[in-house]
Amino acid sequence: MNLKKFTRSNLADLRPYEVKDVPYRIKMDANENPFDLPKEIKEILASELLKHSFNRYPDPTAKELRAKLSEQLRVNIEQIVMGNGSDELISYLITAFGRDDARVVFPAPTFSMYEILAKVAGVEVRSASLTEDFDISVDKLIAELKSGGTNLVFFSYPNNPTGNCFDRQGIIDFLERDDTIVIVDEAYYEFSGKTFLPILNQYPNLVILRTFSKAYGLAGLRVGYMIAHPDIISEIHKVRLPYNLNSFSQKVALKLLEHSHQAAAQISVILKEHERIFQSLAQLDHIHPFPTDANFVLFRTEEDADSLFEHLLTRGILIRNLNRPGLLRNCLRVTVGTPEENNAFLNGLF
Amino acid sequence: MNLKKFTRSNLADLRPYEVKDVPYRIKMDANENPFDLPKEIKEILASELLKHSFNRYPDPTAKELRAKLSEQLRVNIEQIVMGNGSDELISYLITAFGRDDARVVFPAPTFSMYEILAKVAGVEVRSASLTEDFDISVDKLIAELKSGGTNLVFFSYPNNPTGNCFDRQGIIDFLERDDTIVIVDEAYYEFSGKTFLPILNQYPNLVILRTFSKAYGLAGLRVGYMIAHPDIISEIHKVRLPYNLNSFSQKVALKLLEHSHQAAAQISVILKEHERIFQSLAQLDHIHPFPTDANFVLFRTEEDADSLFEHLLTRGILIRNLNRPGLLRNCLRVTVGTPEENNAFLNGLF
Repeated sequence: MNLKKFTRSNLADLRPYEVKDVPYRIKMDANENPFDLPKEIKEILASELLKHSFNRYPDPTAKELRAKLSEQLRVNIEQIVMGNGSDELISYLITAFGRDDARVVFPAPTFSMYEILAKVAGVEVRSASLTEDFDISVDKLIAELKSGGTNLVFFSYPNNPTGNCFDRQGIIDFLERDDTIVIVDEAYYEFSGKTFLPILNQYPNLVILRTFSKAYGLAGLRVGYMIAHPDIISEIHKVRLPYNLNSFSQKVALKLLEHSHQAAAQISVILKEHERIFQSLAQLDHIHPFPTDANFVLFRTEEDADSLFEHLLTRGILIRNLNRPGLLRNCLRVTVGTPEENNAFLNGLF
Repeated sequence: MNLKKFTRSNLADLRPYEVKDVPYRIKMDANENPFDLPKEIKEILASELLKHSFNRYPDPTAKELRAKLSEQLRVNIEQIVMGNGSDELISYLITAFGRDDARVVFPAPTFSMYEILAKVAGVEVRSASLTEDFDISVDKLIAELKSGGTNLVFFSYPNNPTGNCFDRQGIIDFLERDDTIVIVDEAYYEFSGKTFLPILNQYPNLVILRTFSKAYGLAGLRVGYMIAHPDIISEIHKVRLPYNLNSFSQKVALKLLEHSHQAAAQISVILKEHERIFQSLAQLDHIHPFPTDANFVLFRTEEDADSLFEHLLTRGILIRNLNRPGLLRNCLRVTVGTPEENNAFLNGLF
């Protein structure tokens, strides 16, 4: 039997996601928090684990965790839904609102999952290039919208991989449109301090995504959340897997919120180290870092970026090679590591 | 702004999944393993937790866990993909193969997620009633297939909620068709001992689903897996979220496989208790249990099932009320609990 005939034609050009198995000593490629959870927190979690009922299905709506979040964010609990990482919530948004007349639109370059998940869902995708200084061009983006249809416009804020926050009024221009759902992906909010949350109740078409994967150092446990108008949340619940967030991740995220001074301490070190990397790179003749609002630094090298990437890898340092024709020509992205890792990276450049 | 206009019309009749918040003392409604992980295992997990790197993204392909499974199942590692519960894998199957000309087909009554997830994906759904003795009617099911299209036929084996394993040759009739992908959901395999795994390599259109949620007592952590031809697995990888299975669930599932005598001991108690519940119910004049191959017992009462359900609930015992016109008229389903819970249930019937 030839299984090929069963495959969806619009998946034909999608490649399965593959992670290259390169040997490395220091991992600075995935915008993770370089610090593991501190021992005190882990000991609290270990004692929670001993009491945990693994054999029972999770609370399908993660009530306790959402209640704590709603208290900290000062939004209603009905405005929050949890995801198995933000990736899952992006997928749910596209499934819930990706009708035949829908289009997914975003500036490019940006976080790759918007495009991948739209293609998986078979929803039409359009993008518009960022300007030379990595800001959005509102006119170019508007030109890509589907008139008379539903538009899902994604803004990574700050943008991954460029690291900057887009012009606020530019995003508001889309919020003012009645044919558009605007998703502001604030994965790096805890580093940028910039958010659309204060205007959430003004715009029912505003969707904010947040995550525990970055500042909270919980990438391994896959906890993301969405904040939006209850009517949007209710559509997400319709397409959501009932038990999408496992019970232990729910518990760990809750404990981290209860001990958020811990994350705050790590964020403070990361921001200081971010500044140190930026300043160190800025002093180099052949390297030009871009100002970023996140836990990573994008920089352009006057040498060949591929060679520099490989050079670092031979020293055991894995960063992200973004070099491709256009805006990201000769660009590399380094995630802020521990002070020791950052030293190794800075020394490794030579 | 009226958000209603953004909603997908085919989601209009879908209700968000809601769990009724009924107070109960003993939970026998969700086919969970009644035993939590034993203390020795939890202590191993707690020491793993202290070493666990929560801040790093999970291994996207769960290599170590799949390697262990492939060894135990004697299949190639390329024939296995992990899911955030089997629910997610059902959703991926429908997304990957649910083309415009596709149809999801299953016997009814069965596990509700096949229908729900097909509707979420906007794929056409057809079902054919089981016979009076809860077996499949091959002719009726074939009549529901889409000729010239792709058919995804789901068999819950043993079937939830009826508990029986369908006629094997009936399922093979569908495996012999070249317009059909046959999904055999073996969620309760460890209780039934019956599986299609030995003929996996004969049928590239055979997909087997298994889970850690039932016999392994890991419902809280959401670990399911699919075993199929590598060409099918490869299509699943295209639509799969890269980090769908969190790193701690991967680790826990691996530890359970390494200590599988533990699950075996619990399964043995559950099977004995299953037999005891069945025999006890069979002795009652007004109650007729059906033979089942799983960790639950379906039974019909000559009284009103709704009243019996409520009567048990007033005693703090939550079972599943399946009473509806047709095959499940006056039927209730009870999950095998601990010996004490089963006593409470049996006494509670009066």
